[in-house]
Amino acid sequence: MLMRVDVVSIFPEYLAPLELSLIGRARAAGVLDVAVHDLRTWTSDVHRTVDDTPYGGGPGMVMRPEPWGQALDALVPAGRESGVRLLVPGPAGVRFDQALAHELAAESHLLFACGRYEGIDQRVLEHAATRMPVTEVSLGDYVLFGGEVAVLVIMEAVTRLLPGVLGNADSLAEESHAHGLLEAPVYTKPPSWRGQDVPEILRSGDHGRIARWRRDQALIRTAGRRPDMLAALPAAELDKRDVATLTGAGFQPPVDDMAK
Amino acid sequence: MLMRVDVVSIFPEYLAPLELSLIGRARAAGVLDVAVHDLRTWTSDVHRTVDDTPYGGGPGMVMRPEPWGQALDALVPAGRESGVRLLVPGPAGVRFDQALAHELAAESHLLFACGRYEGIDQRVLEHAATRMPVTEVSLGDYVLFGGEVAVLVIMEAVTRLLPGVLGNADSLAEESHAHGLLEAPVYTKPPSWRGQDVPEILRSGDHGRIARWRRDQALIRTAGRRPDMLAALPAAELDKRDVATLTGAGFQPPVDDMAK
Repeated sequence: MLMRVDVVSIFPEYLAPLELSLIGRARAAGVLDVAVHDLRTWTSDVHRTVDDTPYGGGPGMVMRPEPWGQALDALVPAGRESGVRLLVPGPAGVRFDQALAHELAAESHLLFACGRYEGIDQRVLEHAATRMPVTEVSLGDYVLFGGEVAVLVIMEAVTRLLPGVLGNADSLAEESHAHGLLEAPVYTKPPSWRGQDVPEILRSGDHGRIARWRRDQALIRTAGRRPDMLAALPAAELDKRDVATLTGAGFQPPVDDMAK
Repeated sequence: MLMRVDVVSIFPEYLAPLELSLIGRARAAGVLDVAVHDLRTWTSDVHRTVDDTPYGGGPGMVMRPEPWGQALDALVPAGRESGVRLLVPGPAGVRFDQALAHELAAESHLLFACGRYEGIDQRVLEHAATRMPVTEVSLGDYVLFGGEVAVLVIMEAVTRLLPGVLGNADSLAEESHAHGLLEAPVYTKPPSWRGQDVPEILRSGDHGRIARWRRDQALIRTAGRRPDMLAALPAAELDKRDVATLTGAGFQPPVDDMAK
């Protein structure tokens, strides 16, 4: 199935990385068709104005509704809304995560509207929502200049989930994150480098011990760097050895609410 | 103060957006100096190999330590480590947020090591950590192809915090997010568009009522889209009117643990 992606931005040149290896691979596999559009195409004044001051006062500028209305009309003609999903990156959106990446990877047509930080006039989103599903989406709790870099992130996460883009081996690599723990450290050749050796256990060929070592490292790393992920882990997913590993490293294993 | 930024990657062309408007503005203001380097410069074999299979088995490839060791030696000569901070984007890192963006904006020299997903041999990070601060950092809980797009995100968030890059008005716009709530919807001219009017209150000129309306909208939006942010808000930051707004909209206001 071919996924179509349209991106509307006042900085179309920022989207150049969408032409590179990742998207090239997806295009060659016949699974992705990307077009980037300059919002100013749909302005009608000589200055090609896209923004104005906010009603109610406050800093910065807000994007005017007319160019966006024209752009959406042109890219999604009336009666052709079926299968289109509008995504609006911005700090007030729902948080982007791997579950949303999987959801988007199943869509047939994504349309990205890149606003600058202060955002697009709310009426554009409300009008669009009468025609198609609209999702405001945020990469994380930090402030960016505009939606363009968010499109690069989202499309990288989505494209690697499309059939035919990654080999089986690569896609398996995702699973460790899906289990709610950070990955263990990784090592490759040479066995000794600048006085540091690869941990003996990884060279032992004992798959049971290797799996256990990786699990222990993942538990300790997650507890140290992402206590929120550890706390969100259902206690039922931890066995006695996991609890001993965490306790031994000075961390509090999660407690199952049901068991309290 | 001039911030120096070095980026090492096997896809240097992906970093092209660092040449665009944002960085251009920071360069013109004399606050930022960016250089992108191809990791393969520091390979010594004819195939310019940078990766190999992981010890202990598993999918994908791991980046070999030698080219990274050479790159770090070249970019940070022995005895010149003062003021350098190494950042390694990857899914196993601490989560990037606005507090970390502020912290990085105060550094004098950032060095980014872009790994591909399965990562860089752990010994590189351990060796570097004997010379300079090392931070593994993650954009969020989703899986990307490599660290390059994370550098674009982080540098956009950091650069806008550097003195001289944004005007005062723009930088104020950040504050609403800093208060732990999503922003209210925004509107600009024209007052009526496709049958939708700008909310009357925003055109009233009554700054007290406007502030209250925005607060109510921010509360309701945050409760609906980011219940985690609402739950993290100290109850002491909500007044009776806030609680009434949330309750009226069907949401549970946060309860102060101290008051329970």
